[in-house]
Amino acid sequence: MRIISTNDIEYIAMGSTVLGTGGGGDPYIGKLLAKEAIHKYGDVKLVAAEELNDDALILPIAAFGAPMILVEKLFSGEEFIKAFEMMESYLGRKIDAVMPAEAGGLNGVLPFSVAAQKQIPLVDADGMGRAFPRLEMVTFTLHGITVSPITQADEKGNRNVYHTIDNTWGETLVGATAIQMGGSCAIGCYPMSGAQVKKAAVHGIVSYAQVLGEAIIDAKEKNVNPLDSLIQKADAIKLFTGKISNITIKTEGRWNKGVCEIMGLDENQDSEMILEFQNEFLIAKKDGIPVAITPDLIVLIDAENAQPITAETIQYGTRVVVLAMKANEQWRTPAGIELGGPQKFGYEYEYVPVEELNKKK
Amino acid sequence: MRIISTNDIEYIAMGSTVLGTGGGGDPYIGKLLAKEAIHKYGDVKLVAAEELNDDALILPIAAFGAPMILVEKLFSGEEFIKAFEMMESYLGRKIDAVMPAEAGGLNGVLPFSVAAQKQIPLVDADGMGRAFPRLEMVTFTLHGITVSPITQADEKGNRNVYHTIDNTWGETLVGATAIQMGGSCAIGCYPMSGAQVKKAAVHGIVSYAQVLGEAIIDAKEKNVNPLDSLIQKADAIKLFTGKISNITIKTEGRWNKGVCEIMGLDENQDSEMILEFQNEFLIAKKDGIPVAITPDLIVLIDAENAQPITAETIQYGTRVVVLAMKANEQWRTPAGIELGGPQKFGYEYEYVPVEELNKKK
Repeated sequence: MRIISTNDIEYIAMGSTVLGTGGGGDPYIGKLLAKEAIHKYGDVKLVAAEELNDDALILPIAAFGAPMILVEKLFSGEEFIKAFEMMESYLGRKIDAVMPAEAGGLNGVLPFSVAAQKQIPLVDADGMGRAFPRLEMVTFTLHGITVSPITQADEKGNRNVYHTIDNTWGETLVGATAIQMGGSCAIGCYPMSGAQVKKAAVHGIVSYAQVLGEAIIDAKEKNVNPLDSLIQKADAIKLFTGKISNITIKTEGRWNKGVCEIMGLDENQDSEMILEFQNEFLIAKKDGIPVAITPDLIVLIDAENAQPITAETIQYGTRVVVLAMKANEQWRTPAGIELGGPQKFGYEYEYVPVEELNKKK
Repeated sequence: MRIISTNDIEYIAMGSTVLGTGGGGDPYIGKLLAKEAIHKYGDVKLVAAEELNDDALILPIAAFGAPMILVEKLFSGEEFIKAFEMMESYLGRKIDAVMPAEAGGLNGVLPFSVAAQKQIPLVDADGMGRAFPRLEMVTFTLHGITVSPITQADEKGNRNVYHTIDNTWGETLVGATAIQMGGSCAIGCYPMSGAQVKKAAVHGIVSYAQVLGEAIIDAKEKNVNPLDSLIQKADAIKLFTGKISNITIKTEGRWNKGVCEIMGLDENQDSEMILEFQNEFLIAKKDGIPVAITPDLIVLIDAENAQPITAETIQYGTRVVVLAMKANEQWRTPAGIELGGPQKFGYEYEYVPVEELNKKK
């Protein structure tokens, strides 16, 4: 157990953007809500999965919607409290701790606001170890944990409870109403026991986000290069250096889909990189050949300040570095590849681990 | 109170199709489910609104979806029981009687299946006195009764509870998920007290449907003309006689929208009638001039057998008679016209009562 203050939230938010791999929503709003709640209600206890009682009740909390809208449409913060309280009332039981469903992007920091206000711990774990665009794409699904009941609240006061027959139906139905609600809402989902968290979650991911954030933010005062520092802490592979030469993006349902083209610079002078994304970057191709494939993480970094860039904020002409990080081991199993691999997104490529794709020849 | 047997269901189903004014879904499936349940569990007590205890809990039950799909996609019947039981469990209270939300179309007979299986009475009342295409278009709304909580179940096993901020949001959110569920689902909505039913519902509508059904079905054995018999019992105005000359129909969300053109015959030899519909017939125009306007009822009758025709089954060349019936008085108030009148559907016409539009000059 350790105490998380507003200062830590800055680092965690930065690291969450790295883990967002271009999606997950910009954490800015989540950071503000988390810091405001901590300021008002006090610091939050971050507990390791191993510290949980097996019969504790843990609730993953998340903002759910299109990343583009999550940035533009403000949350009041009360939606998340409402989703939390609906779950307590529906299950007729006190919730012992909250957890991020997704440590990448907005959802990496937002649950701190609920933990602070409810004065309960936040578990240092999530269901992705990154961001993914669909509700069923969590390691919980790989362990047979059901998404339902799902509680849903919007800023207008609508509040619903879903009991879906499987986790994909959770995405389908909550996705349909989220669009009607203006593109975003708060959800409580995958309520589970401490024992289930220990078995099914990606452990230590909040602390890992903080380590990545520190690597970037503290580099200057430590007189080290922030990009080198991030690459080292993330055990990342540097895929490409270049300049954004084209960007196409469209909103389809609750997804931002698009292609980002990067013209090579320096050591990649005569090459081109293409990043394809559906909220998150899913495929990185160098001169037509895949060099990183989902579920491995593809991270776009602004070369000026070493900060991660989300897909919806990519700007023509920006100098960038593309990094790749290994996905959590759970995603690299056959079931994990089926749930979060390239074919799940309609690509014909087979998944090959990023370190094999980039083996020095 | 009177007892409803399978024989009565035939009449009520026929009358419900008249009250469906072209929408509400063909009652065929509802009739089968109701008859099967009565056969298995026994006859159903039909009670008048006045007979209810003021503090009784009454649940309107309905099939919700696109009429075209309600005809093609079969219900198991269990969805309705599930929606009923979810409401009991959610409210923590036994439901004393069910009621049709809408006496027009499928929903006029379907609730009998729940009443039979649950061995509780069905209230001789509804929230429309006809069919309407949106969940908030009920007389209950005119009395400030809220649609929430709404329970929703589909044949796959998904089951949700909605708490929306107003009745229009009920339509929006349940409509969005119903489409995802394949276009139809079962709902429990507008749970209300006996006192509220007495004040807000359209009374006696199930018995009225039966009277209309008898007028058509029993005419032959009484040696009377079924059309004349229906016109008399419905206090209907005969608007037009003709032959279907064109029909355009498209599905938009959960609505069938379209236009039906009728070429005049006999006394209407040189005239043309246009019926515009959004599930239900909303405007009847004779040679370009409105002669019946929602919320008044427009009923398309097959001239061969005097049976009502639903919009999705209109066929080129059919000889038809168009009737109009006065809407319930609640729909003819300023608030009623605002909720169910022509401008609610995007027409620029002002509502004028059908008897004024067709005054003998």
